[in-house]
Amino acid sequence: MLTEKARDQLASIAGQENMKTDTASLLAYSYDSTSQYQAMPDAVVSPATTNEVASIVQVCNNENIPIVPRGSGTNLCAGTTPLEGGIVLLFNRMDQIIEVDEENLTIRTQPGVFTKDINKVAEEVGLFYPPDPGSMHISQIGGNISENSGGLRGLKYGVTRDYILGLEIVLPNGKIIRTGGKLAKDVAGYDLTRLYVGSEGTLGIVTEATLKLIPQPETKKTMLALYRDLESAAETVSAIIANRIIPATLEFLDQATVRVVEDFAQIGLPTDAQAVLLIEQDGASEVVARDMERIAVLCKENNAFKVTVAESKQQADALTSARRTALSALSRLKPTTILEDATVPRSEIAKMVRAINDIAVKYEVSICTFGHAGDGNLHPTCLTDIRNKDEITRVEKAFEEIFHKAVELGGTITGEHGVGAMKLPHLHLKAGEAGIEAMRSIKAALDPNGIMNPGKVFTQAERNRVVVNK
Amino acid sequence: MLTEKARDQLASIAGQENMKTDTASLLAYSYDSTSQYQAMPDAVVSPATTNEVASIVQVCNNENIPIVPRGSGTNLCAGTTPLEGGIVLLFNRMDQIIEVDEENLTIRTQPGVFTKDINKVAEEVGLFYPPDPGSMHISQIGGNISENSGGLRGLKYGVTRDYILGLEIVLPNGKIIRTGGKLAKDVAGYDLTRLYVGSEGTLGIVTEATLKLIPQPETKKTMLALYRDLESAAETVSAIIANRIIPATLEFLDQATVRVVEDFAQIGLPTDAQAVLLIEQDGASEVVARDMERIAVLCKENNAFKVTVAESKQQADALTSARRTALSALSRLKPTTILEDATVPRSEIAKMVRAINDIAVKYEVSICTFGHAGDGNLHPTCLTDIRNKDEITRVEKAFEEIFHKAVELGGTITGEHGVGAMKLPHLHLKAGEAGIEAMRSIKAALDPNGIMNPGKVFTQAERNRVVVNK
Repeated sequence: MLTEKARDQLASIAGQENMKTDTASLLAYSYDSTSQYQAMPDAVVSPATTNEVASIVQVCNNENIPIVPRGSGTNLCAGTTPLEGGIVLLFNRMDQIIEVDEENLTIRTQPGVFTKDINKVAEEVGLFYPPDPGSMHISQIGGNISENSGGLRGLKYGVTRDYILGLEIVLPNGKIIRTGGKLAKDVAGYDLTRLYVGSEGTLGIVTEATLKLIPQPETKKTMLALYRDLESAAETVSAIIANRIIPATLEFLDQATVRVVEDFAQIGLPTDAQAVLLIEQDGASEVVARDMERIAVLCKENNAFKVTVAESKQQADALTSARRTALSALSRLKPTTILEDATVPRSEIAKMVRAINDIAVKYEVSICTFGHAGDGNLHPTCLTDIRNKDEITRVEKAFEEIFHKAVELGGTITGEHGVGAMKLPHLHLKAGEAGIEAMRSIKAALDPNGIMNPGKVFTQAERNRVVVNK
Repeated sequence: MLTEKARDQLASIAGQENMKTDTASLLAYSYDSTSQYQAMPDAVVSPATTNEVASIVQVCNNENIPIVPRGSGTNLCAGTTPLEGGIVLLFNRMDQIIEVDEENLTIRTQPGVFTKDINKVAEEVGLFYPPDPGSMHISQIGGNISENSGGLRGLKYGVTRDYILGLEIVLPNGKIIRTGGKLAKDVAGYDLTRLYVGSEGTLGIVTEATLKLIPQPETKKTMLALYRDLESAAETVSAIIANRIIPATLEFLDQATVRVVEDFAQIGLPTDAQAVLLIEQDGASEVVARDMERIAVLCKENNAFKVTVAESKQQADALTSARRTALSALSRLKPTTILEDATVPRSEIAKMVRAINDIAVKYEVSICTFGHAGDGNLHPTCLTDIRNKDEITRVEKAFEEIFHKAVELGGTITGEHGVGAMKLPHLHLKAGEAGIEAMRSIKAALDPNGIMNPGKVFTQAERNRVVVNK
């Protein structure tokens, strides 16, 4: 609970009208896109400037009030659930693109800008911001930075981290620092920029970012390849890379996912295939044409029974959009959807998908798998019902085994969703105890009072979990 | 001084024959490629395995013995000078490429491998490791990682950081951690991989690295454009980027540098030009052909008085090699060469070069400038004589003003050389006091006894400087 003094201080900083403490507001920000996690904040505050953020942080640091910075709450790791109460910090009043610099190929933005608008503004001047997390139409760039969001273009273009050149950060002590800049090269001290990208709001608050843009690819082509078995699809992925082609997108969908997506999107997806690859290449038109031809041959050589190249931009967009609806489509089927992101080296995809299927059978749970085959980032997705305690126990066991398997294959427990509260119990599998200890010491050094997003990544604080039914 | 006990312990770990304490050996490792800095270590140790490194670190941590990890010592920031004594750790016995994984496009390597050999091994299987620091023929990959080395291809391909997927690290407490992996996506906790890249050996010791490779570009073309004035060269750089072309290399040399390089390399470089651009493009042959044609037009439109495309690979290699000899060529002229790396946003290059020239005149010192124009990473290089105390004082003042100017233009005090001991007094200009405080707290958290490479980046420890004459 906030003291009256703290409440008054916060209201006087942001303005009474930008601080909500009514139950409806608190409830609205008591959960994010992650099933199973809910906890009530004490207040929801919307600052308008970096200085206001700094003042708020100072109050919270003095009074030991937890701060949960939150974009659109689209994360899937319970990364923005206010597990220990305190204030949820919104950036709806810090939502401006400050500058597009065509000469330096950068964009300077506040955290509350929607990712899709970064894309749009870049495109308007023939530039390109590649990171495209599944939620990009509603996610905010500040959230993307905190989670180091991935997306469908990771294989060729990398992830959010690869496009963050500089940050303005309010440290947990309320001081403001600026890292990096419009600079491709900067080695002045430790790389705080990349330390903060993906730190899930546990080390401070990003109040401004300078992003790197690249020239827009001249053209793009989209292809669909259908398989009667999983191995052939996985072998195609390997064959494409072995031929030194790096497609912009190389997505995998299993039959269950294709059926659900088709049922939802109705665009004529082939529900009889056991596995589908959605492949996109972009770049100079000659190169795209040549790559797509070679990819089509490789698909056929690896037993694709059908290969279709989209004939128009509309058709291509429909295919990509259908893939993007996978989570929405799947989540219609059962009361609870748990979307994970176990990730393995590309060479281990077939083994991993097979292991997921075996684990689902073993625990008698329903798991569909789709994801970014090109970078080994899979999305095993469990359709379940949180009210069924017995099933939920089996689901948790199944995912634990999936994480173990991913790490055993040289992979990780999370490729792009983050640890948050959700995967906190599994972090040791990937980072090891000494690794967690190192991370924890960094956290303690920068945030000695533990006010920033407590209960996330690795903190042992008890979870204030409120189970809700959908 | 090492205690007898510590000396015995270290010798028993690495083997007596792999620990040198004779004066000749100590002297050989008392300096690196940075003028003006020298200090004697107490021992030079060459471990053979990660476990040996861990045991050595444990001894040093218990006994408060400084450790200076060192590759080939080619750094230009006094990054490996053992300012507080202790042991210099060499990796000549950890010099194996462990694995080239063509399916996952990765290479796993020990720190003592020469950068050029990483390149060579990658090329043999049609792959490419882009970072190419000036010293790549003798530098070790471990040193590149510690310094986050840049190079000529930074504009298009990024720097060392962008190719490090995973690390094995011996922490200052002697524990071994593994970060990342053969993974394009991994967000399991803080990004320790990138925190360690560029941390200049102050946070621990990298004992193994997994590097990302990319397909080798199909072809490459090289072009030289000559200008009668600096502004035209800078405007060409802007025009190329404004036309959405990102060349692989976009190097700038001023007249003084060109003259010295030509005198050294004798390959017919045009010594009458006031400014020269060396431009390379690589990729698919159609794209390279088209880009080079457009670039040639842009050069002429921006007043290049001559544009030459290399007609053969030999001719192209000669041009690039000549550029690579700039430091060697310049360092023949005077007893002391100080090569800096003030870096600005690309749009500010002309302003920065002009400011450097004005500052050189003001302090009556001789400064040539060349560097990576495409990414704003300039190398103002001062030819001086360390025995001339009066001149050295003016040189130091000139560089201080250059760093101020770079930061004022939105740049940084170091683009690719690192802070080390050399730029430690200037770090606050870029990072700010709050930024340094944040870095220092991370250092204290991970290395509470301050054993790792003390006196570098930001530590206030007094410099044990021994001035030597060349």
